[in-house]
Formats: sequence, C-alpha cells, structure tokens
Amino acid sequence: MLPDADAAITRDGKALILAYDHGIEHGPVDFEPNPETADPERVFDLATHDAVTALAVGKGVAEAYYPSYADDVSLLAKLNGTSNLWMGEPDSAVNWSVEYAAELGADAIGFTLYGGSNNEVEMAEEFRDAQEAARDHDMGVVMWSYPRGQGLKNDTDPGTIAYAARLGLELGADIAKVKYPGSPEAIGEAARMAGPTKVVMSGGSKTDDRAFLETVAGAIDGGAKGLAVGRNVFQRENPKEILDALEAVIFEEASVDEALKLTSASAVAND
Amino acid sequence: MLPDADAAITRDGKALILAYDHGIEHGPVDFEPNPETADPERVFDLATHDAVTALAVGKGVAEAYYPSYADDVSLLAKLNGTSNLWMGEPDSAVNWSVEYAAELGADAIGFTLYGGSNNEVEMAEEFRDAQEAARDHDMGVVMWSYPRGQGLKNDTDPGTIAYAARLGLELGADIAKVKYPGSPEAIGEAARMAGPTKVVMSGGSKTDDRAFLETVAGAIDGGAKGLAVGRNVFQRENPKEILDALEAVIFEEASVDEALKLTSASAVAND
Amino acid sequence: MLPDADAAITRDGKALILAYDHGIEHGPVDFEPNPETADPERVFDLATHDAVTALAVGKGVAEAYYPSYADDVSLLAKLNGTSNLWMGEPDSAVNWSVEYAAELGADAIGFTLYGGSNNEVEMAEEFRDAQEAARDHDMGVVMWSYPRGQGLKNDTDPGTIAYAARLGLELGADIAKVKYPGSPEAIGEAARMAGPTKVVMSGGSKTDDRAFLETVAGAIDGGAKGLAVGRNVFQRENPKEILDALEAVIFEEASVDEALKLTSASAVAND
Amino acid sequence: MLPDADAAITRDGKALILAYDHGIEHGPVDFEPNPETADPERVFDLATHDAVTALAVGKGVAEAYYPSYADDVSLLAKLNGTSNLWMGEPDSAVNWSVEYAAELGADAIGFTLYGGSNNEVEMAEEFRDAQEAARDHDMGVVMWSYPRGQGLKNDTDPGTIAYAARLGLELGADIAKVKYPGSPEAIGEAARMAGPTKVVMSGGSKTDDRAFLETVAGAIDGGAKGLAVGRNVFQRENPKEILDALEAVIFEEASVDEALKLTSASAVAND
Amino acid sequence: MLPDADAAITRDGKALILAYDHGIEHGPVDFEPNPETADPERVFDLATHDAVTALAVGKGVAEAYYPSYADDVSLLAKLNGTSNLWMGEPDSAVNWSVEYAAELGADAIGFTLYGGSNNEVEMAEEFRDAQEAARDHDMGVVMWSYPRGQGLKNDTDPGTIAYAARLGLELGADIAKVKYPGSPEAIGEAARMAGPTKVVMSGGSKTDDRAFLETVAGAIDGGAKGLAVGRNVFQRENPKEILDALEAVIFEEASVDEALKLTSASAVAND
Repeated sequence: MLPDADAAITRDGKALILAYDHGIEHGPVDFEPNPETADPERVFDLATHDAVTALAVGKGVAEAYYPSYADDVSLLAKLNGTSNLWMGEPDSAVNWSVEYAAELGADAIGFTLYGGSNNEVEMAEEFRDAQEAARDHDMGVVMWSYPRGQGLKNDTDPGTIAYAARLGLELGADIAKVKYPGSPEAIGEAARMAGPTKVVMSGGSKTDDRAFLETVAGAIDGGAKGLAVGRNVFQRENPKEILDALEAVIFEEASVDEALKLTSASAVAND
Repeated sequence: MLPDADAAITRDGKALILAYDHGIEHGPVDFEPNPETADPERVFDLATHDAVTALAVGKGVAEAYYPSYADDVSLLAKLNGTSNLWMGEPDSAVNWSVEYAAELGADAIGFTLYGGSNNEVEMAEEFRDAQEAARDHDMGVVMWSYPRGQGLKNDTDPGTIAYAARLGLELGADIAKVKYPGSPEAIGEAARMAGPTKVVMSGGSKTDDRAFLETVAGAIDGGAKGLAVGRNVFQRENPKEILDALEAVIFEEASVDEALKLTSASAVAND
Repeated sequence: MLPDADAAITRDGKALILAYDHGIEHGPVDFEPNPETADPERVFDLATHDAVTALAVGKGVAEAYYPSYADDVSLLAKLNGTSNLWMGEPDSAVNWSVEYAAELGADAIGFTLYGGSNNEVEMAEEFRDAQEAARDHDMGVVMWSYPRGQGLKNDTDPGTIAYAARLGLELGADIAKVKYPGSPEAIGEAARMAGPTKVVMSGGSKTDDRAFLETVAGAIDGGAKGLAVGRNVFQRENPKEILDALEAVIFEEASVDEALKLTSASAVAND
Repeated sequence: MLPDADAAITRDGKALILAYDHGIEHGPVDFEPNPETADPERVFDLATHDAVTALAVGKGVAEAYYPSYADDVSLLAKLNGTSNLWMGEPDSAVNWSVEYAAELGADAIGFTLYGGSNNEVEMAEEFRDAQEAARDHDMGVVMWSYPRGQGLKNDTDPGTIAYAARLGLELGADIAKVKYPGSPEAIGEAARMAGPTKVVMSGGSKTDDRAFLETVAGAIDGGAKGLAVGRNVFQRENPKEILDALEAVIFEEASVDEALKLTSASAVAND
Repeated sequence: MLPDADAAITRDGKALILAYDHGIEHGPVDFEPNPETADPERVFDLATHDAVTALAVGKGVAEAYYPSYADDVSLLAKLNGTSNLWMGEPDSAVNWSVEYAAELGADAIGFTLYGGSNNEVEMAEEFRDAQEAARDHDMGVVMWSYPRGQGLKNDTDPGTIAYAARLGLELGADIAKVKYPGSPEAIGEAARMAGPTKVVMSGGSKTDDRAFLETVAGAIDGGAKGLAVGRNVFQRENPKEILDALEAVIFEEASVDEALKLTSASAVAND
C-alpha cells in the first residue's frame, strides 16, 4: 500500500468502482435481465457519471472502447479473470500484462486473489509481479480479495473477510475489494484490519434501491471507503439515478432517505 | 479488440478464412476423400481466389509455401495446434512464435482457446502473450473460441457459443471463430455478445452445396461477419466454384439461389 | 553466509528481530488479544527501541510505513509468506522481489524454507534466487528454517532443529531463525552446526516474563545469537519494558533477575 | 520446412544420417555386440565416409570429438534424449541448447517428438523454440517423429507413420525421421504427406545385408529421401562396406544386387 | 566433455575430490562420529593437502570460508543438493547459480543427476543450463551420476554404473562420479563407457584403511581416474595420513602396502 497511489481512481479518499467484467466471469447470462447491458458502450457512458471514480474492464473491452472515453473515464485494468466454464480449483488467468495496460492508458490495475484456493500461492506470485510492475508505471493497485476454494466453508464469514482485507494491506494493494460480510460492524472490522488500504464492498447481485443504499450507507459508516458495483447498477432501468444516489451516500454524507429522492419515484416528480 | 486491426484479413468488414490446419489437428485422414488435398500448394492456389480474405496454416507449411504467394495471399498464422494422438484434457501446443510469424510476413495470428478445459487458464495466458505480441507487430488476432473438455456437455449449445464469442471480445480478439450453434438466431446472438469483435462461423465437415450455402447465408443475415472454412471447400472437386458462391453470399448479398448458379450445374451450362 | 553481510541488522554480532508478519501468516486472529496490535504504526514505533536490530514485515506494510521510519528502523524484508487459508503441503508465496525491497530501502531479506515439505525443492530454488539477488544489493539474508510437512513428526526435535540450522549455513543464510528445540543445549548444538551463520530462536506464542526471559537467556548462553520475536513482545501491554529486558539479556549479559527489574513491577517502583 | 535449409546435411536432396545417440537412449547394452562401438572415435571415422551426409550425436560426444572432424563430418546436433532408466510417459530432456550447438559448429539440429505422449504438448513447444533458434543460426532441422505413449497401440502402423511425417511438415522440420511402416507403399504415402519435408526411415535393429538393403531400396523407390541408421551400420564388422552399399542404393540408383557386390563376399574377391 | 576443461581440478589427469556436502544431504548426523568435522574450517584445512585436487562444497560454506583458502584450494561448486527430509522422488534443488559460483572464484561445478528418477528429465535440463554456463566461464563440470528412484532396484549394479558413467560423457561432464560397482573390472568397464570423461569412484561410508585403499587401488588399476571422498577421509582421526596414502595410490602408483606405511602405525614408527 503506497499512500496516494490510488489518487487517480478515488475522490476524497473514497472509491466507486463500476465493475464490468461479467462477460468473462459469468458470460452472457448476466446480460439477460437487460439485453442492452451486453453493449460495453452503454457501461462506458455510465462511467462518465461523476459518481464513478473508475471503470474496471478486461483488455479486449478496453482496447475497443477506452480510447473514446479516455478523457472522461478512469480506467481500472482488470488483469485476471476466468470463465465459469472452468471446473478446477478457483483460479484466474492473467489476461493482460501491466505493460500493455499502461500503454492503453490505464490508471490502476485490478487483480483477483483466491486465498485458500490450491492456486493461492501461484496467484499471489502473479499478483506480486503485477503489483510491482504497477509501481513502475505509477498505477494504483486494487485487489479483489476473495477467499475461495478447498477448505473455505463460508466466504462471507466476518473473520474471513477481515483476513481478506488484511491480505490486501500485507501484499501491497491500495484498495481491497471484499464481499459484504453481513453487517456494518463486520466490514468496519475488515477496514480496521486493512489499515491504510482502503476497503470497498462488492455490490453483489441486484437488490431494490432502499436495501442496496442502506447496505452501502452502513458500510461507509462502518469504515468502508466505497463500493465496487456492477449488476446493481447496470442491470437497473435507470442506472444513472442509482449512481446519483450512491454519490450522495458515499461522497456527500447524505442519508439513505435523502439519496432515495434522487431515484425514480422522486425523479419523476422532479421532471 | 482493436478497431481496424484485422483490416489485412477482412474485406468490407467481413472475412472468409480458408483454414488448412487439418494436417496437424486431424492428420492425413482428412485428405483421404481427395488425396490431392494433402498438397499445400493446391490450397495456396485456392487462397488466391478473391473470395478468400486469409489463409490459416501452421508454421512449417507457411515456411515452405508462403514466400511464393506473399503477393496474393493474406497469411493468418495459426500459432497453436495439437495432433489428435493427444489423449489428455483439451490442450494445444504453441508451435509458432509471433515474432517468427511476423518475420515470415504474417498478416494476423490465429489461436485456439478451449474454454472449460482444465488447461483453459494456461491457454488463456498463452493467448495473452500472443495477442499482445501481435499488437506490437500490428497484426490482427483471430481466436478459435472452442469451449471443450471436462464439464462441457454440448459444445454447440447456443449459450455456450454466445459465451465463446464474448470471450473473444473480452480477451482481445478481433475475430472470434465459433462452431455453428444451429440457427441464424443463435449465431446472431453470439455476434451481438461479441460486439465489435467479428464472429465467423466454422465450416465444419463437408455438406452439399445448397445446405452449406443456406447455413452460411443465414449466419450472415443473423449477424455473423463471415466464415472460416476448410474441408467444405478443399475437399470438393470444384473448390473454386464454391468459393465463387461463398463470395456472392458473404460479400455481395446474393441469395442462395443466385449463388448456386455459380456452382457446377450452372457452371457447366455457362461453359 | 558472507561475513559481515548482516551488519545492518545486528549489534555486537547479535540480533533481536521484531517479526510482524502475522497479518499474512495467521490473520487478524493474532491481533485479538490486543486489538491495537493490528496497527502497524504501533509496531514500527516499538521497532525504534534500541534493543530491536531489525523489523521484519511484508511488502505492503513496508510500502505504507517504512518511509516514515527509515532513519530509525532497520528493515528486514520478509519476502515470502502465505495465509493459513492454504490447505496444501507447506508452501510460501514469494510476495516481494528483492529488487523492489532494495528500492524501498531494505537492509536485509527474510525467507521461509520448509525443509521436508513436498515444496522444499521449489522453495530452495526460490531462496537461491533471492539470496543471490540480496548479495547483488549488499543485503543480509535471514532464513526462517522451519522443517515442516509430510514426514516431519516433530518440528522442534533437537536433531531436526540442528539440521534446520545447518541448512541455513549450507544454503547461504547469514542468520537462521529456528524454533526453540526445548533446551539451551539443543539450541547450542544447532548453533554449532550452523558455524558462522548466526542462529536466532523464534519467540513463539506469548508466555510470562520470567519464563520467556529465562528461555532467551538460556539460548544465548547455549550459543544462540539472538531472538526473532513477535507476539511475545507486541501482544504485551507494556512491550517496551520487555524490550528493555530482552536488551539486557541479549546484549548486556544481564541475568534474568536483573532484566526482570526492567519490567512492570519494578518499573512502577521506579516511576 | 524451409527450402534448402538442410543443404549442409543432404546430398542431391537425399540424406544418410549416421545416428549415434545410443549411449544415452539405450546405454552400454547397445555396444555389447561389438565392444569397440562404445568408442565414439570409431563412429566419427565412419562418418567421414562419403555416403554419410550427417552424424547425429549428443552434446558431450560432440564436445570431445567433433573439433577433430569438423572438416570431414557434418554435425547433426541431437538436442534431446533421455535414458531408458526413465519410467514415466515418453519424454525427452533437452540436453543441448541450439546456441551452444551453433557455437560448436553444428550444421543442423535433431529433435525427438513423441506425438501422443502425455508430454506431447510440452515437447512440441520445446521443438518450437529449437526450430526457430535453428533458423536464426541457418541450421537445418530434423525431427525424430515417433508417436508413442498412452493410447498408441502400434507405433509402426502406416496411418500413424503418415501422421508422424505430416507433423514434421506442419511443425517446421526439414527432414522427418520415421519408423519404417512395413512396406515401400506405406513409407511412400508418409513421404507424400510430408510434401517438401524429406522423409527418412530409421534403420532399426541389425538385420542381414540383403534384407536391410532391400528395405532401404524399397523405401527410396517408394519416395523416402534416405535413411537414418545406427546399429545396422556400426554394429557390423565391416561397417564401411555397408556404407558403400547404402551409398549405391540411396544416391546412385544401384540395384540391391549391385550394391551387395560392395559388401564382404565380393569385397574379399576384389582384394 | 571438453578436453582439458577440468585441468584446474585434476593432476596428471587424475582427481581426488574431497566432498563436503554432507551438511545438506544428510545433516548433522554425519558429523556425530567426530564432532569436530562439523566445522568447515577443518575440512578446508584438509583440502590444502597436496593430494586433494578439489574441494566440493555448497554455496553458503564457500561464501564463508573459500576467500581465505582461494590460493590453496581448488573450489568445486556443488550446485545442487537437497536435505534428506525430502520424501518425494529423488530430486535435488539447484541452490547455487553458475554465475555466482564463478564470481566466488569456483574452478569447476558439481551437479547431481538421478537417472531413472521421475525428476530425471527436469534434472537433466537443469544440468544442461549449468553445464553450458560453466563453459561460458571456463569451468570444468563434474556429474554425480547416481541412478536412483522408481524402477531402480540396485543402484550399484555394474550395468547401471556403466550407464551412469556413459551419461556423464553423453551429457557433457568432464568427470563422472559414480558409486563403486563392486569390482575393479566393473568400474573399469564404466570408465571405458565414459571414454574421455574421467570416472571417479565415490568414497562411500567409512571403512578401515586397508580395505579402503585396496578398493581405490583396484579402481585405479581398473581404469578409474580417481576418487571423490568425504566421510572416509574427514571422519578419521588422522585424515592427513589417509590423504598421504591416497596420494601415493592414486598419483604415485604406489602399492597398497607402501601406502599403508604412511598411515598411523608406521607413522608412529617414523616419528
């Protein structure tokens, strides 16, 4: 963790990362609820929203779309990922070199580590190479710290999530993305364990506006420094509204009730 | 996917790739229906047909024949491949470095990825190296995206093919070659998932002229950007005629009936 | 073992290494007895104590805190380590390159070798690379020589510890950190086997002041050249006092009774 | 396959390779029928015979003897090989780098590929590196194309040998050395499948003069471009005579009867 | 095998290698018969004896002691070795790079190959790298050629030892160290199979003076070019006497009876 290394993908020390690696990790099934979401352009457009501090995508998507958005979007190069056709112990192919990410103009790198997998040691060493190369290119480092695999019975257990967050600090991540461990207290403890490494919660699968915003607000109150979100934004019919609301909750210390006014019901009223 | 990176192996945004890697993948048995087809020179001659936008061959064949055809054929260097003597989980040896392919004058590289194989992670990382090296040499990238191996029950299932096509986009291919998923709608959906990455259908084993052309025409109408074909062309007695017909269907928006006039029956009449 | 290579992390030929890699090796559970100990800053402060000849931490912690302590703390870069979520044969990921450790200003490297593990050969070769790179950067080398894994029934058996210490010498460590083998004679024999490589005992889990100091004093008398300690210092309420006492025992030839006067009871009296 | 790349180890487009890698592949047992044959000098002397277009040996033998024969012998550096103490799936260690072979003055490289072995993919990738390095040094490439291992029931089946020969072409060998598939027709078919890659038959274990020469003559008539032979030459009492006869059959279109006149019976008469 | 490459570690074409890698291979148990033998300095002193043509030690020991003996001892850098805590198939970690050995002033390298182990192929490729790097630094190469592992029933069988010696020649060793195969004839046959590669016998475990000297003298008569010895020298009370005797037998063609006069009984008489 290098102070200020993540400046290009944070705002006031917090982060709202729009994650769009579902095409590799889950495949087209994630786009079915809203077929337009298969189009990366739609998500790049969303990423120009002021609330979004970085957009996480894979190499091929970045090659095709990022050049047109370089002025308006901060690029978080998600280096590794694997299709869910994979049947082995949790693992993730490194699909993108740091050097090429830098060449394309990435502001930071993202990297998944499956602690507890039989591939943990190999993945940690791949992370080492990526993290140190990122330093050479003055890029921040975000770890998707997801304990998973043989021996992990519950991957959102508070103790496991606290360990996951601490691994982010120990191994050199500036930001650690962890699963939500079920309570503001638990993610707060994870944040305390990560020290200066910022902890952001994963958005998870789509929920309703209030439930989602309350979870995020609680996490921020508890000590989390933001959110990394995909489906809970891009699968919505009015994704910009939820971004408005998230911006209020994460960066402007708004209450959930205030933030909810920025979503559809009140939006209609304001028109 | 880098816009225009595949310009040297496409025409009007579409591709007709003549594939001739059967000598390594299947061995001499594929040449038995027409023994002359074992001779690469015959296939290089076919590749000079205007309809063909690229010829995909392995290193040894390219070394021996490509220098004589460099002015008339676009070379798609098929980097990996393995004999069917191999009994392990699907895998493919990288038989050709990108650097040497560039030295021989290749216009693009071709690379097989067996998503779902226990070797998927390793193959994806080999693809990464090849894809990025291709960028250094301004070469386009074609992925043979073929989910296969442990856990794959049906490798032409529409959902699987759509995922295969999307992997092409996500991992940085300019063109994704996929198996035909059984209907124009299904390959159209795959094409939509691949976004700017062009989807081309595999020709598969030899069928009769009308059936073959109707499948291709349907795929093009559905959204596919072309065809990668081997046996369905080179095993025919009059392979140039089927190329004439394919050219009409793929590049000239001809109907199947119009295209069929370019094949033997009518050809005889026209002589 | 290169004479004087460890000068930056020893004092009068002896070492008191404060080890703080628990966040990766054991996770937050090690901070529970004293929640403040999760904060690396607290441990860096402790490491400014005159008694401490080096502080062993991982890359991420060093990135965040070492720059502020570079004048007052000698940095021992603990290069490898793995979470205890790992269920495989003992292994340790190399999380930090020697080059980057040198860039951050490290004075020496630390490296775990699990002799007897099915990963011993691979770990020894990783140690080779690290040890030789350390020589290029004029850094000392400390081996955590911990026989462990298939076939090891008792990892504190005197014969095993003597072998562990000798491996330190043979493979090129300047200091070998070994588990305490149960008696001053046994650690003395380990020290004799290590020859010019200094043997330091591991502090192990927390014990009371007298028991701890007597073990350390006995080890020093037996021939050990110091101590590498974590929980037995940082989990205490008054860690500076135990450092005062350890300094007396290790560097000043004080008796345990004299040293104990520097801890709480007498400290209170001195106030 | 690069036209003319094998010029230094062929004569009139044909090859007679004297192979002497038995010391590694089989061990001293192959020298027992004629103990003098253990002495490499004896075989280097044989290799000065006009009939021999190249001598295939391993690195250690080349280091010791080739400098004295560099003017009279063409060196085929056999890069890989493994003792028959090996009990695993067929594999072959790469014992010699192309760079060092070039430094010692080698004219070409030889490389074994066990198609069908569980090590096929790895061996093919090692072959790639060697083949491309050979091109950098203007050396020809000979593949010992020997399908073997799990799943191969009959390694001299005509179809298998034809596939083996084709793999030579596809992967970039200038010459493919294959087992004799039992008939002139079968080796002719293999030669046709290899196209411009020259197919040479393996000499196999020692047989009598007439049987051996008839097999070779038939293979040449069938389309093979020569022979790679070891025991069938060096185990004979008068190995130069059989080389005279082979030269007649391979390079001078002599009949077997004519060639046989050059061996012992008539040789005695001519003295 | 490169003529004269071993000149720095031989004398009149013969070698007496003092081997002291027991600390890694067997551990402290080998020093128990004579506890002083744990001290490398004692062995370096022995190595200054005229009889000793090279001292084989590991990296750590060389770092610590060789600089003081560089004028009087020829250093044979034993590159690989593994503790006997290892429970897997025979393998040996490469603990020392050739480059660093050269930097420390080594005259030659030593490398163990376990032919027949499931790790044979990997070890042979590591040997290749080491052997070729040694050539770059003008260092001789000694192979500890020890068939071992799955499938080896008797690792001192004459045929196995002859094969082991031949592998030394084939793979590029200047000297092959083999187990004593039980008779002067058998080691002579091994020497004949190794051709110009010198065969030296391993000293094995400690035996009495006459038995040991008779075995060595027989081996030399049979064709061996010397001895690599550890325990049979350094475990003795008067190791210099046995070196006197070995010098007589190996380099001065003395009889065993003459040589025995140089050991204790007569030494006492001569005082």
